[in-house]
Amino acid sequence: MNKTPAPKVSARGPVDHEVRDQIVAAATEHFRFYGYEKTTVSDLARAVGFSKAYIYKFFESKQAIGEMICANCLDEIQTEVKAAIDAVDSPPEKLRRMLKALVESCLRLFFQDRRLYEIVSSAASGRWPATLVYEDFIEQSIREILQLGRQSGDFERKTPLDETTRAIHLIMRPCFNPLLLQHGLDTTDEAPVLLSSLILRSLSP
Amino acid sequence: MNKTPAPKVSARGPVDHEVRDQIVAAATEHFRFYGYEKTTVSDLARAVGFSKAYIYKFFESKQAIGEMICANCLDEIQTEVKAAIDAVDSPPEKLRRMLKALVESCLRLFFQDRRLYEIVSSAASGRWPATLVYEDFIEQSIREILQLGRQSGDFERKTPLDETTRAIHLIMRPCFNPLLLQHGLDTTDEAPVLLSSLILRSLSP
Repeated sequence: MNKTPAPKVSARGPVDHEVRDQIVAAATEHFRFYGYEKTTVSDLARAVGFSKAYIYKFFESKQAIGEMICANCLDEIQTEVKAAIDAVDSPPEKLRRMLKALVESCLRLFFQDRRLYEIVSSAASGRWPATLVYEDFIEQSIREILQLGRQSGDFERKTPLDETTRAIHLIMRPCFNPLLLQHGLDTTDEAPVLLSSLILRSLSP
Repeated sequence: MNKTPAPKVSARGPVDHEVRDQIVAAATEHFRFYGYEKTTVSDLARAVGFSKAYIYKFFESKQAIGEMICANCLDEIQTEVKAAIDAVDSPPEKLRRMLKALVESCLRLFFQDRRLYEIVSSAASGRWPATLVYEDFIEQSIREILQLGRQSGDFERKTPLDETTRAIHLIMRPCFNPLLLQHGLDTTDEAPVLLSSLILRSLSP
């Protein structure tokens, strides 16, 4: 296997985050082909062309590298979903767009490449920090759309905001949690429209 | 290992369904302890005390025995859910009771005994016939409650019945499908109430 040259050391030494990014990029490629669960840090070191000790200078474990890959993946979903929400003004339409974008991003990032699915599902099972940030983002997005819709008069205001937020979060969960989504791949065409429509009927003032 | 005596042969020979029930009962106990995936028909024959050939006279494969166990388990859920629905008259209350009973039965039957979970999850992944009957039962129960509520004036009638039925089925899915339910065990306290309340708000005329 060809060794990747070690990162160039400039006068001030390599910048930490550059090396970290380089390891993460190489590890992402490696996991894509060989899988996350089956790869050890030794395998990774060999493949990336760094020594194992050098990798351990930047990441304390394979999971720490996996967490960075997972965080990048979940970040990308959050960016796409946020763009979809911000692209429209009407709160009901924001909610529709949110669910549609969520399903589309998750399908693309988790399942077009089954190897990335392995990392995000380990992350979801193990409740890695990146997945908690991701869950919070979704909960917060729902809450903000609800608040906007309550202000605009599009949505009812009788039900406590926390209750509605939590219920919608539960309904959306099979669409954004990789462990659930894998068992609903036959419903991803119809689910976003059917669920948004039912949720919006439940929100009518 | 002690051999169970072969079933007594009366003048008219053993009644097929009695022998089948006997095999299923013994297999259920065996799978509980040793797991479904890891057990072969040979293991089972040894444990049950019948010859392998005798078992094959009644079931063509291990899956056929698993299907019977799974069907019994799903039947029990259906009986309990039906009783819960029939115990009240008001359509909104029927819907609440249905979801509550569904979650309680599934938790008890799928998860109090993790070994049975293994069979029902194989069934759900493989779409065994018993799981299709179970899915149909749930869809049909939702539809009947909706029809009653539309007649009584409790529920709105503008949305096509098929659409509402399908959307509610999708929302309930994480509560009755063992593959999804296993990833939502931390939400089973709040889910039935939150989801029923949101669904009922969506149904208000």
